Amino acid sequence: MEDETKNNWGSTAWAHLSSTRQHSPLIQCITNFVSMDFMANTLLAAGASPAMLHSLQEIPDFTPNINALCINIGTLTADWLPAMKMAAEVAVKAGKPWVLDPVAAGASKFRLEACIELVKLKPCVIRGNGSEILALFRASVGSTKGVDSMHDSTDAIEAAKSLAEASGCIVAVSGAVDIVTDGKRVVGARNGVAMLQKITATGCSVTALIAAFVAVDPVHAFEATATALSIFGVAAEMAIDLSKGPASLRMHLIDSLYGLDHSTVLKRVNITSL
Amino acid sequence: MEDETKNNWGSTAWAHLSSTRQHSPLIQCITNFVSMDFMANTLLAAGASPAMLHSLQEIPDFTPNINALCINIGTLTADWLPAMKMAAEVAVKAGKPWVLDPVAAGASKFRLEACIELVKLKPCVIRGNGSEILALFRASVGSTKGVDSMHDSTDAIEAAKSLAEASGCIVAVSGAVDIVTDGKRVVGARNGVAMLQKITATGCSVTALIAAFVAVDPVHAFEATATALSIFGVAAEMAIDLSKGPASLRMHLIDSLYGLDHSTVLKRVNITSL
Amino acid sequence: MEDETKNNWGSTAWAHLSSTRQHSPLIQCITNFVSMDFMANTLLAAGASPAMLHSLQEIPDFTPNINALCINIGTLTADWLPAMKMAAEVAVKAGKPWVLDPVAAGASKFRLEACIELVKLKPCVIRGNGSEILALFRASVGSTKGVDSMHDSTDAIEAAKSLAEASGCIVAVSGAVDIVTDGKRVVGARNGVAMLQKITATGCSVTALIAAFVAVDPVHAFEATATALSIFGVAAEMAIDLSKGPASLRMHLIDSLYGLDHSTVLKRVNITSL
Repeated sequence: MEDETKNNWGSTAWAHLSSTRQHSPLIQCITNFVSMDFMANTLLAAGASPAMLHSLQEIPDFTPNINALCINIGTLTADWLPAMKMAAEVAVKAGKPWVLDPVAAGASKFRLEACIELVKLKPCVIRGNGSEILALFRASVGSTKGVDSMHDSTDAIEAAKSLAEASGCIVAVSGAVDIVTDGKRVVGARNGVAMLQKITATGCSVTALIAAFVAVDPVHAFEATATALSIFGVAAEMAIDLSKGPASLRMHLIDSLYGLDHSTVLKRVNITSL
Repeated sequence: MEDETKNNWGSTAWAHLSSTRQHSPLIQCITNFVSMDFMANTLLAAGASPAMLHSLQEIPDFTPNINALCINIGTLTADWLPAMKMAAEVAVKAGKPWVLDPVAAGASKFRLEACIELVKLKPCVIRGNGSEILALFRASVGSTKGVDSMHDSTDAIEAAKSLAEASGCIVAVSGAVDIVTDGKRVVGARNGVAMLQKITATGCSVTALIAAFVAVDPVHAFEATATALSIFGVAAEMAIDLSKGPASLRMHLIDSLYGLDHSTVLKRVNITSL
Repeated sequence: MEDETKNNWGSTAWAHLSSTRQHSPLIQCITNFVSMDFMANTLLAAGASPAMLHSLQEIPDFTPNINALCINIGTLTADWLPAMKMAAEVAVKAGKPWVLDPVAAGASKFRLEACIELVKLKPCVIRGNGSEILALFRASVGSTKGVDSMHDSTDAIEAAKSLAEASGCIVAVSGAVDIVTDGKRVVGARNGVAMLQKITATGCSVTALIAAFVAVDPVHAFEATATALSIFGVAAEMAIDLSKGPASLRMHLIDSLYGLDHSTVLKRVNITSL
């Protein structure tokens, strides 16, 4: 029974990766300066087509033609926020899904307020680490559930579920086990390696991969989120044996993602209900 | 006869690379956020000296001392355009060549208009892919030649020739075969590997290499453009056998460019008249 | 005697690296676009926790909680300067050390004036190459010592000493031998490889590593600056044998920094009094 479920998720993950390679969805990324290069290369390696475009003047022309939008607030400044909000609004109006990465959501009042405004613009998926999701939950849902001591992804499940329910988004929490929830269902994606934390922008890049998978399967955003997290993790697992440290891991990760084959995906993808 | 021509181009390419290594031309780059790191490393690997400097306040002091300027509109916003225009004007006034990379020229009205303004500021070379050159041609020359169906570099030859003639620039069109024209002469640079398209900012980086080669041989900008495209392609050809995917290709490409020797250049450079 | 001194420096360097790995100091970086990715990965590989955060709105909330601040003016524009100054002020007020990288200080009047303003805000350490330190010295101390012909790190010793004395900072000058002075003491860190100059942002990244080492040993900023320069150089020495060019050197450098062990540090660190 467990094997069967695992194979179903493996097949679904392969379908999402194959579809991304086949359709090469156009993913607009409004992201931080640190991650732009790695994010673009992650999307290219997965078969998607990245467009790092964030000027107010061209969002009305450009954004209606994309397949999904990825907004990441990593190096947020006040002058970037209007473009993020406009792009989210144009995307939603055009029926295109968008994904939010609330980097360091709790680092400042400014940042948290920006996140709350963005969450109101109906992202399809929010992906962060435990403390980011917790900060968002507290700010936008309220801290009434005794979650003050939560700090890893498993502890953050309740916060993620509440946030998902309140916002209508899929919420993903990265950690030792990646958690995905739509407020009712909860799955854990159990792929990846610990050394990913020693490479900058891996979280940003997997969020972009979620955008690509959601772009090719928008009616199954819950599944697409889980498979993107898992596929990125599988690529890291394939890479780690070839790596001597974080920089070679980063290189082999992209190479592995580019070359991932059917049997590896079926064998490795490990997503289970929680 | 064909071998002789090939050897002439090989010798010219080697002369440009050697001269870049010897003179280390200072190349100012006003470029997009995605490409900055890879572009700087490409220039360094080729022996040039990159300077990523784009503030209005210092262009009057700095730009007269450069050897060439590379302007790339990849992540264009309204606040960057004045610096691009000022730098182009200062460069032209100081007799320094500049090169334009009209990334995604047709993606929005804003971007296309920015390109047209920049083309008027007399770039020495314009390098883009087929659809970018076509968008520029249509906007600045007019769409009267039945080129509406053009979309790859070979199809774009006529558009490139017209654009070169109308603007007085060398025009290069990247594709399976890279095309270079001054409006009269047309050559094809037949080096490179398909997987380059899976690495972000390779186009941006080759444009910067064109700027370096034009800097060391400004009176032969046509030839320098063709040899830069070819040398970058040769470096990729040397790299591909060592690579398992796009990220290792990117690494080996820079290493190969750094180490390219005379005999490899002579043997591999493949530029022919079209 | 010399071996004993060398071993003392080796032990000190290991103490700084170990402490960085153990305490994972939070290093805020306000840096140029080119270096962000490599700098963040350098800090992560050394065990520190990077935060690329530069918005005026959140510095008051965020900066008091950091362990050190790194300010780098590589791609300076007028709109970034207020955040740099505010962050420096908040850091100093909160008793957190900050480190200045005056990239291309002499490239323009605008840049030099920005540097002088920043130096007045009491950085703990200034690290530049010979011409940057010389430009700063001339502008902020005065060109009265006949140093007009200085251009490498050894020649710049007198300028560095004067600048250190006048500003109260530790001053480091990168070059074939890296010089560190507090105005009285002068040491040379003799690690590293020449090919580092062919990789962009290595200077920026070592400045960030200085910030991390100063964060874990703020009362010994002179020693921490020297050991950071040396540890980065040792990582490069370990990497060079595995490398075929600048791009593989960059990768192996990060991997080596991540994996550096006690005996290698003791054996390799080479810092001597000058």
